[in-house]
Amino acid sequence: MRVYNFSAGPATFPEEVLDQAAKEIKNYKNHGLGVMEMSHRSSEFIDIAEETEADLREVMNIPKNYKVLFLQGGATGQFAAIPMNLSKEGGVADYIINGSWGKKAAKEAEKYIGVNIAGKAEPFNFIPSQDDINLDENAAYVHITNNETIEGLKFDYIPDTGGIPLVGDVSSMILSEPIDVSKFGVLYAGAQKNIGPAGLTVVIVRDDLLDKARGNTPMIWHWGDKSIAGSMLNTPPTYSWYLAGLVLKWVKSKGGVEGLCEINKRKAGKLYDYIDSSDFYQNDRQKDQRSLMNVVFTLPDPDLDKKFLTGASENGLKTLEGHRSVGGMRASIYNAMPEEGVDSLIKFMKEFERDNG
Amino acid sequence: MRVYNFSAGPATFPEEVLDQAAKEIKNYKNHGLGVMEMSHRSSEFIDIAEETEADLREVMNIPKNYKVLFLQGGATGQFAAIPMNLSKEGGVADYIINGSWGKKAAKEAEKYIGVNIAGKAEPFNFIPSQDDINLDENAAYVHITNNETIEGLKFDYIPDTGGIPLVGDVSSMILSEPIDVSKFGVLYAGAQKNIGPAGLTVVIVRDDLLDKARGNTPMIWHWGDKSIAGSMLNTPPTYSWYLAGLVLKWVKSKGGVEGLCEINKRKAGKLYDYIDSSDFYQNDRQKDQRSLMNVVFTLPDPDLDKKFLTGASENGLKTLEGHRSVGGMRASIYNAMPEEGVDSLIKFMKEFERDNG
Repeated sequence: MRVYNFSAGPATFPEEVLDQAAKEIKNYKNHGLGVMEMSHRSSEFIDIAEETEADLREVMNIPKNYKVLFLQGGATGQFAAIPMNLSKEGGVADYIINGSWGKKAAKEAEKYIGVNIAGKAEPFNFIPSQDDINLDENAAYVHITNNETIEGLKFDYIPDTGGIPLVGDVSSMILSEPIDVSKFGVLYAGAQKNIGPAGLTVVIVRDDLLDKARGNTPMIWHWGDKSIAGSMLNTPPTYSWYLAGLVLKWVKSKGGVEGLCEINKRKAGKLYDYIDSSDFYQNDRQKDQRSLMNVVFTLPDPDLDKKFLTGASENGLKTLEGHRSVGGMRASIYNAMPEEGVDSLIKFMKEFERDNG
Repeated sequence: MRVYNFSAGPATFPEEVLDQAAKEIKNYKNHGLGVMEMSHRSSEFIDIAEETEADLREVMNIPKNYKVLFLQGGATGQFAAIPMNLSKEGGVADYIINGSWGKKAAKEAEKYIGVNIAGKAEPFNFIPSQDDINLDENAAYVHITNNETIEGLKFDYIPDTGGIPLVGDVSSMILSEPIDVSKFGVLYAGAQKNIGPAGLTVVIVRDDLLDKARGNTPMIWHWGDKSIAGSMLNTPPTYSWYLAGLVLKWVKSKGGVEGLCEINKRKAGKLYDYIDSSDFYQNDRQKDQRSLMNVVFTLPDPDLDKKFLTGASENGLKTLEGHRSVGGMRASIYNAMPEEGVDSLIKFMKEFERDNG
C-alpha cells in the first residue's frame, strides 16, 4: 500500500515512473543491461540524455538561445557556482530575499562576491514589491528564489531588473506552472521536487552568459565548458538523468506544464479554500503569493501539532511537519501528488478540527 | 538476457542488487514509499545512511579517527575540493602522475595551488619508484591515483611521504582489494565503478585534516562542515547512497573485500595469463603494476580493433574499446563482473586469435 507522501523533497514520484524504472532496471530496451550500468559515452545513454533535454525544452518552451545543463551538487552547489560563473572577483550582486533559501543563497554567494540585499521581506511571509527593490546598477546579476519551499511563498511577478541578468532558483516550482524563460538569464533547480531524484541539478543559461566564468571555477560547474561538452565533461549522474526523462514523459502525458498547472491550481486551491474557511487552521500569506507547491498552515495551538501528525500518519498522510526552522505544518503537493492525496488530507483535517476544535 | 558489460564506469552492477532495488522501488520495507521519495531527514533514510556508512567502515576496516562523507560532484569535483580543503592560498602540493586521471587531478588543482610534479611516468605505462619521487617539503599533501583506469596501472606500493598527508584517488579500485587506510590522510572515489551509481562520491578523511579548509570552499564540499552535518548540510544523493548500501551488503555476502580480492586476483590473473601466453594480444605493464580492475591490451594491428569489437558484441561481450585517448582494448572487470564473464571473454579472444592470427 502506497501512502500519500507530502515530503518537501526528496518527494513523491509518479507511480507509473517507478513502475517503468523497476521494469527496465536490469535490461533497458533489450540492450541486456540497465541504464545505471551504461557508459555515459554509449550511444544508448546519449539517446536518453538528448531526448530528456529535448523534452525539457519542449515542456518549458525554452528558447533556442539558452543551454540546458545537467549537473551535480544541488541548488546549494549552484549558490557558489552562480557568482563564480557570472562575475569577476570584487564584483557585486543583488539578492532579493523573502525566505530561507534566498537567505542561504546570499550567504554562500558572499564567499565570492559582494552581496547587495536589494529587497527583503521581514518576516518571510510576503514578497517585496517592485517599488521596494533597490538594485545596485553595477550588479553582475539579480537573484530571486521563485518559490520558497519552507515559507510556502512564491513570486507573483517577475522583477524588472533594467537589463541586469535575472537568476531564478526554481527548485520547488519548476514544471508546476509555465515560466517565461526569456525573462531570466539563468534558471536552476535541484531535481528532487518536480524533476527526479536528489543528486541531479538542472541549469538553464542564456548563451551570452556562458563566457563570464572565473578562471578558478571548478570544471564540473563551469557552465560554458560544460555546455560545450554536453554536460559530460565528467561522468554525469546518469541514472538520475534517465529518471528525469521518465518524469518528463509523464509530464507530457498530463498535458505538459500547462496541463499540470491546471491540476496544481485545483489541488492547492481546494486546500487553501478549506484553510481559509476554517477558524482552526491558518495561513496568513497574501492569496496571490501563496505557493502552489508548498502549502503551509498552523494549528491554533502548537501543542496539537504532534497529535495532528500522528493522526495524519495513521491515515496514510506522511511527512506533514513544517520545516524545523519555522514549525507548523507543510503539505508539499508537487506534480506527482495525486489529487486524491489532497482530498484525503482535507478530509482528515476536517475530522481533526471537529475532534479538537 | 543480460550481457557481460566491461564498461569502465558507469559499470555493471551485481544482478542481485538490481533485483532488490526493483522489488522495493515503490515500497521500501512496507513504509509505503520508495527510498527515492523519502526525506533525507526521515528516520527511515537516516537508518539507511548510517548502516551504509557502518558497512563501508567494516569492509574497509576504516579506523575510528577517519570520517566518511557521502558527497556529490564525482572525483573530478574533489580534484578542486582537495586543494581547497587542505591548503591555504599560495601553498604547494605534490602530484605523482602516472596516468590520465592523475594528470587531470593536477591540472584542476593548479587553479587553487602550486603543483609540484613530484614523480612522473612518461609514457604512462609504469609507476614511478620511491627513489624517483621528489617531494616538496612544504607541500600541503601528496596526491596519487591508486589505480589508473585508462592505462590499467596500479600502484604496487604506498609512497613514503615523510609525514605529509597522502591523498589517494581510489575510484577504480576501492572495495576490490584491502587498502591500509591509516597510510592515507584522504581517500576518495567516484561511486560508479565499485560502489554504486554515478553521482555519489565517497571521501574518507583523517580527523586532523578537517579544519584546514579555505573560507571560500563551497559548502557542499567543505569536509569539516559536512562531517559535522553527517553529509546532510544539503540534500545528499539519497537513492545512490541507498544503492551503495545494497552493494555493500553484497560485498559482505562475498566474504568482504578480502573475499572479493581473491576472486578479483583469479579473474585478472587468468586474463593476463592468457594475454601473456599469446603472441597476438599484448600488455606491456610490469606484472605487479597491472590493474586488477582494468585490463588493457592491444591487438597486433589496430585495423583489427573494429572487427574484434563487433565480434565480441555479437557474443554478448560489450564495451571493450579502450579509452579514446589511448586506443586498444580495455576489459574493466570490477567486483560485479562475474568470473563467467572473464571466461567468456577469454574464449572469444582465443577464437578471434585463431581466426585472425
